[in-house]
Amino acid sequence: MVMLRIALAQVNVTVGDLAGNADIVVDWTRRAAARGARVVVFPEMALTGYPVEDLALRASFVDASIAVLREVAERLSVEGLGGIAVVAGYLDRRPGLAPRTGLPAGAPLDAAAVLHGGRVVITSAKHHLPNYGVFDEYRYFVPGNTLPVFRLPVPGTSDAVDIAVAICEDLWQDGGPVAVTRHAGASLLVVPNASPYERGKDDVRLDLVQRRAREAGAVLAYCNLVGGQDELVFDGDSILVSASGEPLARGPQFEEALIVADLELPPAVSDSGEAVDAGDGSLITIERVALPDIAAPPLAADVDPAAAAEPGPFWPRLDDLAEVYAALVLGTADYVRKNGFRTVLLALSGGIDSALVATIAADAIGPEQVHVILMPSKWSSDHSVTDAEDLVERQGLHARTIAIQAIVDSFRDGLGDFPLAGLPAENLQSRVRGVINMAVSNDEGHLVLTTGNKSELATGYSTLYGDSAGGFGPIKDVPKTVVWALSRWRNATAVAAGMTAPIPPNSIEKPPSAELAPGQLDTDSLPDYFVLDALLDDYVEKDMGSAELIAAGHDPALVARVIRLVDLAEYKRRQYPPGPKISQKNFGRDRRLPITSRWRETLPG
Amino acid sequence: MVMLRIALAQVNVTVGDLAGNADIVVDWTRRAAARGARVVVFPEMALTGYPVEDLALRASFVDASIAVLREVAERLSVEGLGGIAVVAGYLDRRPGLAPRTGLPAGAPLDAAAVLHGGRVVITSAKHHLPNYGVFDEYRYFVPGNTLPVFRLPVPGTSDAVDIAVAICEDLWQDGGPVAVTRHAGASLLVVPNASPYERGKDDVRLDLVQRRAREAGAVLAYCNLVGGQDELVFDGDSILVSASGEPLARGPQFEEALIVADLELPPAVSDSGEAVDAGDGSLITIERVALPDIAAPPLAADVDPAAAAEPGPFWPRLDDLAEVYAALVLGTADYVRKNGFRTVLLALSGGIDSALVATIAADAIGPEQVHVILMPSKWSSDHSVTDAEDLVERQGLHARTIAIQAIVDSFRDGLGDFPLAGLPAENLQSRVRGVINMAVSNDEGHLVLTTGNKSELATGYSTLYGDSAGGFGPIKDVPKTVVWALSRWRNATAVAAGMTAPIPPNSIEKPPSAELAPGQLDTDSLPDYFVLDALLDDYVEKDMGSAELIAAGHDPALVARVIRLVDLAEYKRRQYPPGPKISQKNFGRDRRLPITSRWRETLPG
Repeated sequence: MVMLRIALAQVNVTVGDLAGNADIVVDWTRRAAARGARVVVFPEMALTGYPVEDLALRASFVDASIAVLREVAERLSVEGLGGIAVVAGYLDRRPGLAPRTGLPAGAPLDAAAVLHGGRVVITSAKHHLPNYGVFDEYRYFVPGNTLPVFRLPVPGTSDAVDIAVAICEDLWQDGGPVAVTRHAGASLLVVPNASPYERGKDDVRLDLVQRRAREAGAVLAYCNLVGGQDELVFDGDSILVSASGEPLARGPQFEEALIVADLELPPAVSDSGEAVDAGDGSLITIERVALPDIAAPPLAADVDPAAAAEPGPFWPRLDDLAEVYAALVLGTADYVRKNGFRTVLLALSGGIDSALVATIAADAIGPEQVHVILMPSKWSSDHSVTDAEDLVERQGLHARTIAIQAIVDSFRDGLGDFPLAGLPAENLQSRVRGVINMAVSNDEGHLVLTTGNKSELATGYSTLYGDSAGGFGPIKDVPKTVVWALSRWRNATAVAAGMTAPIPPNSIEKPPSAELAPGQLDTDSLPDYFVLDALLDDYVEKDMGSAELIAAGHDPALVARVIRLVDLAEYKRRQYPPGPKISQKNFGRDRRLPITSRWRETLPG
Repeated sequence: MVMLRIALAQVNVTVGDLAGNADIVVDWTRRAAARGARVVVFPEMALTGYPVEDLALRASFVDASIAVLREVAERLSVEGLGGIAVVAGYLDRRPGLAPRTGLPAGAPLDAAAVLHGGRVVITSAKHHLPNYGVFDEYRYFVPGNTLPVFRLPVPGTSDAVDIAVAICEDLWQDGGPVAVTRHAGASLLVVPNASPYERGKDDVRLDLVQRRAREAGAVLAYCNLVGGQDELVFDGDSILVSASGEPLARGPQFEEALIVADLELPPAVSDSGEAVDAGDGSLITIERVALPDIAAPPLAADVDPAAAAEPGPFWPRLDDLAEVYAALVLGTADYVRKNGFRTVLLALSGGIDSALVATIAADAIGPEQVHVILMPSKWSSDHSVTDAEDLVERQGLHARTIAIQAIVDSFRDGLGDFPLAGLPAENLQSRVRGVINMAVSNDEGHLVLTTGNKSELATGYSTLYGDSAGGFGPIKDVPKTVVWALSRWRNATAVAAGMTAPIPPNSIEKPPSAELAPGQLDTDSLPDYFVLDALLDDYVEKDMGSAELIAAGHDPALVARVIRLVDLAEYKRRQYPPGPKISQKNFGRDRRLPITSRWRETLPG
């Protein structure tokens, strides 16, 4: 057996920022080399960011990605890092494919390259293209059909190790590069990933990685992206397992990290390069390249070159609520930062939704960057103002108060003989607040955050162009019952650390109300949220039909009512801003329904 | 040779309206039978509507589709129409596929069935799944792998004809059902379609159908859907060509029609049923069924049973502008009707965009259903009011005037020490108008139409939650220069027919202005629209990079400026309401870019 030190660089890159992402790859390779790593693995499409969507179809962007990859290889060599094998994802194209109907323009590839000795020594592309949930890759890519195996000399010995490269979805589907890795006899399979967070997915991923390591008969190094990108939050959580599936190291969740570990690997023996039945109806060609032995740079002073090949490091795991909260904070922080904003603005009502959003924002970018507006109307309760003021004081936010009644009245005057009552009158108040948010945002340059939760969004319990107006909705994928749980968890965490609870307990405990009409409560229009959320989970996440929902124990009248609300709210949801995705079926990219449709689950048939 | 009378029923169905769509299939089969047709072809997914999107993944909806197909077969027989072979699209599933990552839940099929004698006699499914442009079919369907060939007896003879069935995309890609049709020896290939309109696509389609008929060695009957569905407009334009590609009949554009034609076909001879190399890397099994000879119902009194098999009918073709205008009218009419609205509301500015939208709406649903609001501010010119009033009078619309200045001032008072100037002040006016539109719409139940055109939308020259607030944008895919051309065309058409020109000439001729600041003109912020639209076409539709754009003759400074505007407006466009699609790259479903992206064409690299 020979010893190889590997580093998984789970970094936070930005879509389209080729220069910035290139700097990240060079910088983190330098850090990995200083800790003695001879191979460094970066995430899928680390140089372009992920997902690039229609940018993949633009020739100038593909050209730029290929160019920056070569520049990075040269820069690494110039910096004395040419002896480190760097595996990084980027965007490439397959030459020689004639345009035809259905072929993505320019035949783009979701590619990975091995950089060594100042050169791009071998490239490959993702074989299995996901086209479900948040993924649309048949639109954008043509599949790869090779398995690259690079032979890396072990310094000071005559041995070398064979290292294969697969990409993300290649692990999730049967057959393909994993199966061919066993055939190729590689002792290590490195896998760049861009796998977005969902609640509970970390357990699924570990099982998968363990199973695929056993199938490949190789140590498996799974390096995942970190960071928010529009609605997606990549959680890192990189994994290293032995060929028998035993966990060897695991990175942190929701933060950048360099996971450095020593591996004991069998030396390279095989030399076959051939087309192999990939077990999925396709042929995959094994492409081999032997890397020259290039000296690595000196280690950092505090690194022990003779570290034992013991398992680790293992970062501590977050529990479920901590995980969700971290996803919301990272998703919000990155949306603000990557879109060039420095501050946010939101309407504070005294209720729990805006209190939690303000807290997430303060945790994401600092309370001094969070601006709030209290906008009481004549239906606002006393506690709506006092609870909001309490929150401002606990967290040190920038607050201002703008009373809306005179503005609402001026609309009523202007409308003249169309006196508004009921829902139109309620919506008017919400829209006046939306206009004020946008006016202050336009004037001062804040990103407006919306405060709607998933239960409201699902049932249409919000005002289009009113409370739904804004650039980002931090809790748009969080059901109301989870809003409460997160708020309690956040307060308890603060108290346990000897700090002030950030959220006023009264905002958590009082019955929810939109306060758009006298004495209004959410329960006037909606069922109890614990009952509602359970039903929404079965209808929206699990796609149960009405018969199944009733069989699962939901009240038939409630099933009919809620399904009607959810089906009719489709248009409103399309106009909702993006927000961090934490579930299987966030409204938006991964749930798509016609606006115009007469299908109702409650109809007979 | 034997004679067969065929009918193509290009009908307008509604997504999800299984009962309504079933009625349409029965009704149009009755009409076809009365005209002597023995085979009737309906569009792709005629029973469910198209596209059903995530409804395909809901088991209860698939069950309902299968059930309604069987009901239709029975109803046809009960009505004495069992002797007519009816080919209709519906949603089915492939049984026996175990769930796995990437497999659409429930293994749905974009299916077609032959109904005859009260039964579903054979079914098949689309083999080639489109996953580009507006299509996402790898998300929703598993591919079909059979070619059904049904043998239909020719009444009064001992002969029969063999008829094969393929579906839509099966024509657009090489190999597959078309190739296998030749092998099967079928003399007629019938193809249900749901092919959305784009400018110039009708010519492409005719060429394609002619080519595929020659490849199949069979008469080809192409039946396309008609009607608006969210952003898509299906244009009908069904085509019948001989085995040598000669046009035999062609239906109208943008309206329902029954295209009845007599075909001379070679009688059936082959009997092979086997798996055939489809020429696209797959095997397709030929499945044959022989239909019994069932008497057809009596002909309508005015139908000549011995009509000669001469080519035709051929409906007259629309020219380019008439075609675009018809698409906008049909898309608007169907969005209103299929979503259960009866009336629309829009803000009338006196400018050309709102004038054209009002005209489209009046043509779509009648002027008595069109409500307009004039909302002058202190920056509104005299002609903005007089031109709007002129339009109201020309068309007989419902108009009201609501002055907005007092409301704008009440916001300024409320904002207190945050005096707005510049862009925030301009946006405020637009948002006040948006709130008024929504208040009146909420109160009276109108669908709000937005009036933004594609040039504005592309460059972000509109106010989020202001003029972009509404349920449907009839001209969202129409560049400004085409707005003018359509307006002139519509006026000229009216005058040529001896009617009043519906659009005030001054609205067409005056320089465009948003009138949100004193003396403002669009040209203060944007280049001349003829220059801009040419550049947008190259950048947005053709995906040219900056170097290509400059090489194509666009001014380098303008290229940099416009690219920046277009790239930065991505978020606004996502919040825009749907509107009829008339181009390759409508913003929305068929153009998808990350909101968060640092990629700019103007950056070096």
